[in-house]
Amino acid sequence: MPISPSLITEFKNLLGAQNVLTEETDRLSYAYDAAVLKQVTPGLVVLPTNEEQLGKTVKLAYENSLPITVRGSGTNLSGAVIPESSETLVILTNKLNKILEINEEDLYAVVEPGVLTAKFAATVAAKGLFYPPDPGSQTVSTLAGNVALNAGGLRGLKYGVTKDYLMGIEFFDPNGDLIKTGSRTVKCVTGYNIGGMMISSEGTLGIFSKIILKLVPPPKASQAMMAVYDSVQAASETVAAIIAAHILPCTLEFLDQKCIQVVEANAKIGLPTEAAAILLVEVDGSHQAGVDEDAAKVKEIFTKCGSTDIRVAKDAEEKNKIWEARRAALPSLARAKPTTVLEDATVPRSKIPQMVSELNRIAEKYKLEMGTFGHAGDGNLHPTILTDRRNEQEFKRVEEAVDEIFDVAIKLQGTLSGEHGIGIAKAKWMEKETNKATIEFSRRLRLALDPKYLFNAGKKIL
Amino acid sequence: MPISPSLITEFKNLLGAQNVLTEETDRLSYAYDAAVLKQVTPGLVVLPTNEEQLGKTVKLAYENSLPITVRGSGTNLSGAVIPESSETLVILTNKLNKILEINEEDLYAVVEPGVLTAKFAATVAAKGLFYPPDPGSQTVSTLAGNVALNAGGLRGLKYGVTKDYLMGIEFFDPNGDLIKTGSRTVKCVTGYNIGGMMISSEGTLGIFSKIILKLVPPPKASQAMMAVYDSVQAASETVAAIIAAHILPCTLEFLDQKCIQVVEANAKIGLPTEAAAILLVEVDGSHQAGVDEDAAKVKEIFTKCGSTDIRVAKDAEEKNKIWEARRAALPSLARAKPTTVLEDATVPRSKIPQMVSELNRIAEKYKLEMGTFGHAGDGNLHPTILTDRRNEQEFKRVEEAVDEIFDVAIKLQGTLSGEHGIGIAKAKWMEKETNKATIEFSRRLRLALDPKYLFNAGKKIL
Repeated sequence: MPISPSLITEFKNLLGAQNVLTEETDRLSYAYDAAVLKQVTPGLVVLPTNEEQLGKTVKLAYENSLPITVRGSGTNLSGAVIPESSETLVILTNKLNKILEINEEDLYAVVEPGVLTAKFAATVAAKGLFYPPDPGSQTVSTLAGNVALNAGGLRGLKYGVTKDYLMGIEFFDPNGDLIKTGSRTVKCVTGYNIGGMMISSEGTLGIFSKIILKLVPPPKASQAMMAVYDSVQAASETVAAIIAAHILPCTLEFLDQKCIQVVEANAKIGLPTEAAAILLVEVDGSHQAGVDEDAAKVKEIFTKCGSTDIRVAKDAEEKNKIWEARRAALPSLARAKPTTVLEDATVPRSKIPQMVSELNRIAEKYKLEMGTFGHAGDGNLHPTILTDRRNEQEFKRVEEAVDEIFDVAIKLQGTLSGEHGIGIAKAKWMEKETNKATIEFSRRLRLALDPKYLFNAGKKIL
Repeated sequence: MPISPSLITEFKNLLGAQNVLTEETDRLSYAYDAAVLKQVTPGLVVLPTNEEQLGKTVKLAYENSLPITVRGSGTNLSGAVIPESSETLVILTNKLNKILEINEEDLYAVVEPGVLTAKFAATVAAKGLFYPPDPGSQTVSTLAGNVALNAGGLRGLKYGVTKDYLMGIEFFDPNGDLIKTGSRTVKCVTGYNIGGMMISSEGTLGIFSKIILKLVPPPKASQAMMAVYDSVQAASETVAAIIAAHILPCTLEFLDQKCIQVVEANAKIGLPTEAAAILLVEVDGSHQAGVDEDAAKVKEIFTKCGSTDIRVAKDAEEKNKIWEARRAALPSLARAKPTTVLEDATVPRSKIPQMVSELNRIAEKYKLEMGTFGHAGDGNLHPTILTDRRNEQEFKRVEEAVDEIFDVAIKLQGTLSGEHGIGIAKAKWMEKETNKATIEFSRRLRLALDPKYLFNAGKKIL
């Protein structure tokens, strides 16, 4: 059943005709997100331009029992914003994109949901402050999307992820009533920590309208380094040794040979294509002397753990080159084959050596081409299978391999998803990591807050 | 209606007679907590000794519709564990006090609910690691209590509060089923962030059985200092100036003249009793040079903002003396008059000067004796009214003053409670800070997870 013309007229009256997209060609753009999953074209797409319109949109949609999918830039990797059906109303937050306040004295900012992550970070940086979460999609991702998925990024090891910066949030419930939680203060225990519950709720518990984010003073010094290894094991043991030495680099990334080779083939930045693995490390801090000391210790550990070559960035250009290697990993892998299956299994850091060798075993077992890169310091690896979805036989092996990857991650006391979310993609594995009672508990929670089950319906996060 | 003898027998069969306290003299000890509120003696007190017993206790109590109050050491300041009625079952977590794992490689620990905060911190420290949250009651408070109230402490400014250290939690739902959420990994987005929701839920959403806490490397250097002021305004402006200089001390505490005088009268540690206020500041870090640099900058700011005397701790003994001044504040105030009303209103840091002058205005207006101390760096002040509850006329003025303190805090974009919780004490002000819809939203959430409304019934946190 499509959305009725009279209801469409109501949305047009509320939002202005230019903010209600009815044409199929327009709606098609919102049928998918960054996950490799079946597309579903929504029935209607609307763009509220202020908070009041957003609340009234939610109320009108809910009263009329429309499934509602709120969407920022659709950069998530788990199918979290793929519409449920052709009846679904997609609410775009693109026009709710104002930075309402940057408070330099009290180190916080208040933003509308659709503010872009990188633009926000740059605006904050221009005022001499720092917003650390930097998901791979930061140039296009929105801050509300970051909260809804608890976006991670390269700086998670030292600076944490989006949840560590959420001070407060306001959102609309099914009645279109505004719920207010958290504060502009660094400490707040007034009532339930509803903001904590909204983190990684993937659009199923409420429609965000305003977010208060913590800011921190920026580091005053940093040092980026690359270490080359002829054994994956030696590289992954280096990760454990750095943490054991009580050094928390802001970034500690791993690329295996496959990744090095495809990045080099694409980006031509002089990477050692014969190496079994490389580590990219950056230490930072508020004092040059401390950073120098940490960098020296890290270099010692590189050598002690068997690195065959260490490159230290001498200036901003060399530093940029090191990070270019990491940033190019996913785009380069994605270009190598028609289909890229990017996984997100995460283990306690010390289990990285075991996880890496298990990943290699699994790739061999299922005869698959796999490159692994990721946030080694967080135990958050991205094994990436290069395949072609049209090759049914191979794709079946891909699915079996992914199953086995999750089994191994959970056996190593890890988790299904470090930062990409559950969405549609990982729903079927949820019970493996938790248990049946936890799924039922989550369902009770969800239904109490969304009795018609319309908020991002079809997402099996519960 | 008292708890039936046959049900008591069932608890005895489950837990052993020695773990079921039926005598009134025993039960009386659990009629109150650290808040100044009416006592209510529970009907029965039980002490499960392992996780299985805890789950079965919850199930048995819930099936029999007993109100359940879980209690650690009862150190909260908001009446959060005062039983609802003489039918209430108090579950003590004291015998669930094992540290199950301290993982030095992956920087986390797994604990049972009843582990004492300071004992845990000391055990972790002995392994060369650091658990920063340090609520005032840490020597007796339990970790589950810290999670349930989101306990703060002196180190909140730099290191955050309990919620910043919760990686995962397991708890029992009303069916006695174990709910598992979070992970041993630093990143985890598998399903709802239920752990985030359990933070500051004050025993109303589930009965905690196991907690995974993040650990960090300890600082390698620190410097403690005291600055004396002849004007409260100058002291509170110093706080704003330190933050504006992008220095985050691990601790930044404020004591006004009243506090200085009662502490000195009690503890005789050589405090300047003529001073209008003192600031106690400690900077720390992983490198001596950085700490020295920060300490020098802080001293400069002290002078620039008009401090009349600066004392720098030269050794551990002098450092201890500085912190003794702060630790003695509440006990000294509590001794001065029969009743101590300790408040917890919190404002954005830059509003501290305004808040302090408003507090003085309010004390004068209602003719009350008030001392103010607290975590100035967090904007988290503890105005403390010294009174006598039996003096009805004065106590009425106390209540009016507290009302006005909250009005001012909220007007300054602050919060009712920075770290003490809502419990019974602050329930009536909840709507002032949030709104009606938020209270109703919280109630729907609570009832969905506790349909008989038995978990810490009577607590109006919702």
